[in-house]
Amino acid sequence: MDNYRTYLSEAEIPTHYYNLRADMKKKPAPLLNPGTLKPMTAEELEEVFCAELVKQELDDETRYFEIPEEIIEYYKTFRPSPLVRAYNLEKALGTPAKIYFKFEGNNTSGSHKLNSAAAQVYYAKKQGLKGLTSETGAGQWGSALAMACAHFGLDLKVFMVRSSFEQKPFRREIMRTFGAEVTASPSDTTEAGRKILANFDDDSGSLGCAISEAVEAAVTRDGYRYVLGSVLNQVLLHQSVIGLEAHKAFEKLGVKPDIIIGCTGGGSNLGGLIAPFMGEKLRGEKDYRFIGAEPASCPSFTRGKYLYDFCDTGQICPLAKMYTLGNGFMPSPIHAGGLRFHGMSTILSELYNQGMLEAVAYEQTEIFDAAEIFAKAEGILPAPESSHAIKAAIDEALKCKESDEEKVILFGLSGTGYFDLVAYQQFNDGIMSDYIPTDDDLKKALSYVPPQPQE
Amino acid sequence: MDNYRTYLSEAEIPTHYYNLRADMKKKPAPLLNPGTLKPMTAEELEEVFCAELVKQELDDETRYFEIPEEIIEYYKTFRPSPLVRAYNLEKALGTPAKIYFKFEGNNTSGSHKLNSAAAQVYYAKKQGLKGLTSETGAGQWGSALAMACAHFGLDLKVFMVRSSFEQKPFRREIMRTFGAEVTASPSDTTEAGRKILANFDDDSGSLGCAISEAVEAAVTRDGYRYVLGSVLNQVLLHQSVIGLEAHKAFEKLGVKPDIIIGCTGGGSNLGGLIAPFMGEKLRGEKDYRFIGAEPASCPSFTRGKYLYDFCDTGQICPLAKMYTLGNGFMPSPIHAGGLRFHGMSTILSELYNQGMLEAVAYEQTEIFDAAEIFAKAEGILPAPESSHAIKAAIDEALKCKESDEEKVILFGLSGTGYFDLVAYQQFNDGIMSDYIPTDDDLKKALSYVPPQPQE
Repeated sequence: MDNYRTYLSEAEIPTHYYNLRADMKKKPAPLLNPGTLKPMTAEELEEVFCAELVKQELDDETRYFEIPEEIIEYYKTFRPSPLVRAYNLEKALGTPAKIYFKFEGNNTSGSHKLNSAAAQVYYAKKQGLKGLTSETGAGQWGSALAMACAHFGLDLKVFMVRSSFEQKPFRREIMRTFGAEVTASPSDTTEAGRKILANFDDDSGSLGCAISEAVEAAVTRDGYRYVLGSVLNQVLLHQSVIGLEAHKAFEKLGVKPDIIIGCTGGGSNLGGLIAPFMGEKLRGEKDYRFIGAEPASCPSFTRGKYLYDFCDTGQICPLAKMYTLGNGFMPSPIHAGGLRFHGMSTILSELYNQGMLEAVAYEQTEIFDAAEIFAKAEGILPAPESSHAIKAAIDEALKCKESDEEKVILFGLSGTGYFDLVAYQQFNDGIMSDYIPTDDDLKKALSYVPPQPQE
Repeated sequence: MDNYRTYLSEAEIPTHYYNLRADMKKKPAPLLNPGTLKPMTAEELEEVFCAELVKQELDDETRYFEIPEEIIEYYKTFRPSPLVRAYNLEKALGTPAKIYFKFEGNNTSGSHKLNSAAAQVYYAKKQGLKGLTSETGAGQWGSALAMACAHFGLDLKVFMVRSSFEQKPFRREIMRTFGAEVTASPSDTTEAGRKILANFDDDSGSLGCAISEAVEAAVTRDGYRYVLGSVLNQVLLHQSVIGLEAHKAFEKLGVKPDIIIGCTGGGSNLGGLIAPFMGEKLRGEKDYRFIGAEPASCPSFTRGKYLYDFCDTGQICPLAKMYTLGNGFMPSPIHAGGLRFHGMSTILSELYNQGMLEAVAYEQTEIFDAAEIFAKAEGILPAPESSHAIKAAIDEALKCKESDEEKVILFGLSGTGYFDLVAYQQFNDGIMSDYIPTDDDLKKALSYVPPQPQE
């Protein structure tokens, strides 16, 4: 019998990030300058992002990027993360399937976001920068950034959507404890913020507005750059440590997963988890089924269109070719805040378009049903985001029960739900709702897409 | 260089609890029946507690109790816990000391409480009981119990102090998600609760009242027993897994700690952490310094008296000989709720009285100073309770810096502070206060102690 938890040793932490793009014959489409519809150049991107990260963003060829020793040392304070055999969940379901999950939530930021924050902060520090800016919604990404900035010694200015800043003060205080300056957005500290405050009665804010303020705060300050926690190629590159560790752990166990499942918002968690396995599939070495699990309320894969769109509602970011619901799509107020993004990683979008990856969409209440089953069986309160992957894993395991197949299922438990207890309360009280956009809603949101470049 | 985190394998999880009392020449004083001032009999205790736990409670001679296979299997879902070398804290302090901490917070209950909850629930299930009752303040113990009851399949009724039930709803929802019934105390579901509701205008509740309701709910229901998360001998016995794992990990590293530090409320965390090391000291095999770190606002060790007192404010529980501030002592509203107990484990009290154990008391703001230093260095947001141990460890490490001594310091990081962010906010805002009882306060509280038995 395997252990419940398989830990690699610290010496086995990956020494290189794996760049999935290197093994893609058809590469993900490049980011475009929205003014010229020409690919974004390194020079253009370096106004916003630090140089090494721009290099990683644009490089579709280099298969491995060495992880600097300083990042590995920092990883050792919260990695390797365990690969857990979900014996108790298997028993609760009565399935012959073997269920494993890679658990990224056992750090104070509570999720996998810290893997990329570590790298982004390190490269900024190495470039001699003074500080970073970013935006955060509920605060997962901001918390991870604050922790990494405290470790590497960099200033951090976080623009936090005002409604979260006021109603979800807990992650705000984590950020402050780790030394970050947290500003409610819209704020009067930026031009973008002042404009919104002057023109609108509602000052509750949005992620789009917080992005605009964070980018402005970076480009108008000497020695500052902007960082982003998902969607970008560089972020998926950093998150490949999740998949690389899982791959090595399975090798040790002598087990090959058949199905690999992750939740998808911007794609960083799923992209990181599947990276080395997808590499094997792309190279024709092994076969796996990959499943992205998304909210039915924000169904980029399952109901979006594959075309060029702005990454942000404010239409100031570059264009990315991706499965999108339209940059004007306003996701309903579901509790899996990390999955409320209208688009998707260009890497995952291209793989989905090639048929290398499947997708499923779930409603909010069925996600929490799955979360409760998982929590009771495995003793971990999952994040609503991660619970999409749990739901898909349970569904696949129940199919195995019907067909009496002993498949091996791996899913990514990207984070814990310790700061999502208002959602759990709604669920426990039986007052949680589902939100599914109508075809008309989607049609309307997609009426705002920018002009497409000629193929 | 050691690893950052030393994990034992699952096969190395202790197979036996270690009963420190077996190695004490002078035993801790027995619990007394407050009516007769005679030692509580097994029969009397079994009205409230389940039989196997009563046996453990009363047995001062058996050195090792075998841990049932089912408990070990459950431990594997969250144990072994890591022994962490605090390299980054050492660097931040510039100390030659080697600092290690045993981290018990990486489970959804957020603390070491789950170690004893697992055992108590298992034995109740084995006895064929239907359910358990208990009280909880902020909810750490209740969360741990709810998780263990979900695992072993037992009903759970938790009486939660009403002020916490209403103002700190998060752990309440964790308990409910794991299937527990959570009642705000005082409630109209018990005689004790109804009496309080009828006689007092204030229905915000207290731990003393919640205990009375939980005990009544157990003894008036068929197949129910009451369980308690600290203070008792049985709880320290179960918590010895912390120390046993730490001891084995140090053996593997070839390192011997010089100083071992834990925070103290009722004593379960410190008692569990030091158990096997204290055993060596009692048997004259090795020497260690042991330090209990307590809040200056509730200083049982440093300012209490060693005498028989009620364990509860309601004066319905047995008498225990312990360092006590008096059962009428009302601890000020500090944020380390888990340390707000007027008394102390009888085992630790006797050891302290014998001079085997030191104690220090800290004010709330210096605790949070230490917590912030630790969080920034080690990337873990500590519980306010645990931060007492952090503060003591930092103080000892700084002494080593002055004397240029390379001592090895071990402290217990008993839990995480994810549900203590209101306290962190007060600290970050600079509006946190300290509370230290005056000599008059203490004198007044100790005027209510019961008649003492003849020695």
